[in-house]
Amino acid sequence: MRAMQRRYAIIGTGALGGFYGARLQRAGCEVHFLVHSDYEHVREHGLRCDSKDGDFRLPHVHAYQHARDLPPCDVVLVALKTTHNHLLPALLPPTGLVLTLQNGLGNEETIAAITGAERVVGGVAFLCSHKVGPGHIRHLDYGQITLGEFSAPGITDRLRAIAADFERAGIPVRLEPDLRVVRWRKLVWNIPFNGLSVILDAPTDALVRQAETRALILDVMREVVRGANACDVALTETDITQMMEYSDRMTPYQPSMKLDFDAGRPLELDAIFAEPLRRAQAAGVALPRIETLHRQLTFLDHRNRSR
Amino acid sequence: MRAMQRRYAIIGTGALGGFYGARLQRAGCEVHFLVHSDYEHVREHGLRCDSKDGDFRLPHVHAYQHARDLPPCDVVLVALKTTHNHLLPALLPPTGLVLTLQNGLGNEETIAAITGAERVVGGVAFLCSHKVGPGHIRHLDYGQITLGEFSAPGITDRLRAIAADFERAGIPVRLEPDLRVVRWRKLVWNIPFNGLSVILDAPTDALVRQAETRALILDVMREVVRGANACDVALTETDITQMMEYSDRMTPYQPSMKLDFDAGRPLELDAIFAEPLRRAQAAGVALPRIETLHRQLTFLDHRNRSR
Repeated sequence: MRAMQRRYAIIGTGALGGFYGARLQRAGCEVHFLVHSDYEHVREHGLRCDSKDGDFRLPHVHAYQHARDLPPCDVVLVALKTTHNHLLPALLPPTGLVLTLQNGLGNEETIAAITGAERVVGGVAFLCSHKVGPGHIRHLDYGQITLGEFSAPGITDRLRAIAADFERAGIPVRLEPDLRVVRWRKLVWNIPFNGLSVILDAPTDALVRQAETRALILDVMREVVRGANACDVALTETDITQMMEYSDRMTPYQPSMKLDFDAGRPLELDAIFAEPLRRAQAAGVALPRIETLHRQLTFLDHRNRSR
Repeated sequence: MRAMQRRYAIIGTGALGGFYGARLQRAGCEVHFLVHSDYEHVREHGLRCDSKDGDFRLPHVHAYQHARDLPPCDVVLVALKTTHNHLLPALLPPTGLVLTLQNGLGNEETIAAITGAERVVGGVAFLCSHKVGPGHIRHLDYGQITLGEFSAPGITDRLRAIAADFERAGIPVRLEPDLRVVRWRKLVWNIPFNGLSVILDAPTDALVRQAETRALILDVMREVVRGANACDVALTETDITQMMEYSDRMTPYQPSMKLDFDAGRPLELDAIFAEPLRRAQAAGVALPRIETLHRQLTFLDHRNRSR
């Protein structure tokens, strides 16, 4: 049965790509992992996943050091940091659906410029996971993904087929007819929490508990909603309420931008801050709080990497 | 000649009160210093000032531990941190003109509520000085003051008399008919530089050099001007240009809020941030960047003092 044998390529075997790729392989999919720094280790030892859903190991995985060696795959999952998007022209194979689960805005457009828009689907992952060692991922919380078509709104059979694979792997999936809604809704969380966790050197629980930062988070979320609305994306105050409830329930957590900062890696500022600001500005809307955070982060990112 | 013998009380013998009081005494004024933590040392050894205008010592000064022991003075210079304003009812003597050179907005009102408005004059100091040891002040740069009446606009003889004393002590003085202009103009500098130096852990020269923080400083300054205008204080873009030129020329400098933060002292957030925000809000104007900085600082201040 063809659906049971759908073949996946994972571009970027880190906290996100390693986790979903390993889960798909454990569920019976054929998965091919493009691995950068951990290549030797993963080829010899496979992948290890410590997960709140149960720990497991995959002693043998298909690991590749070079994209050109990947076999043709049905779905190419892009799980690179957006700060490496300049590498995509050399990494994306000539065939197969390309699914990006990267952060922020603009990734589908970047990929579409390489592959053509019809090959692109996008999504967001609500996943708390870290890479804790070579080929070793720790999955702390959540994991659900939301998927949508890029080139035309609507829910297609190819989205349903990908969703079936992920669900077979125990990953909850939602399909959304309008991908832009998904992307902007995630920014309602990503912009305040990624930004403030770096600027104030604080985990999410401290930020939501303190009255002044809680008020700031809410105002920043309102600016994201205003930016979305200016771009004809119909978010409302309800999206803010839901994100705050989600944050209140969340295990104390260091957002990905904070982990990047602490590790001296470049921050995903273009995808998470600059591109939303550009789109809002093009639509004639100023987002002064988000702009303030972006400028503070640019200063901190620059200093962090020149130390 | 009465003018030569004007008697000063200094409430708070720190970086500011110690500096101006010592300069006034050296120039022939009779000065009485209220001293808190350094009392024993100052009573025995006097004051020491290392200054870019020339180092000097005053081996003997009139030092007091309790405000009730101060003799009647013509001018009472309030040089406390505004975070100690709750102590003023017990510290202000029953007679004499009260001159506050404290930061931010609201200090004249606080004092007027204790002494009556007619006894109050205010001013701002552009002074880079630190206390480096007991009774020991280091004066790095600047020093000029601007003075104005609180209860009614205009330049009065009593302002001119104080100005004459300070000028005799080598301190440049400007008299301003509208104190509110002086106060808001200083906030054009104080709000961005005090705020960002703490939030981004950076000295002023790094903040003005980097393009993104420079743009942020300018936008925050524009918000201060908008707040001033809403309160009928006629600042303009020219005030911003002057403050940036002044900052570009300034020796690399840690603003007073950064020094307070690094020493674990409470930050002067109410006078420098909250009161201007309240006044702008009461006039119907939102200042979202300043509000963002204020909320970030409140979080940092709280954590800094609970560690």
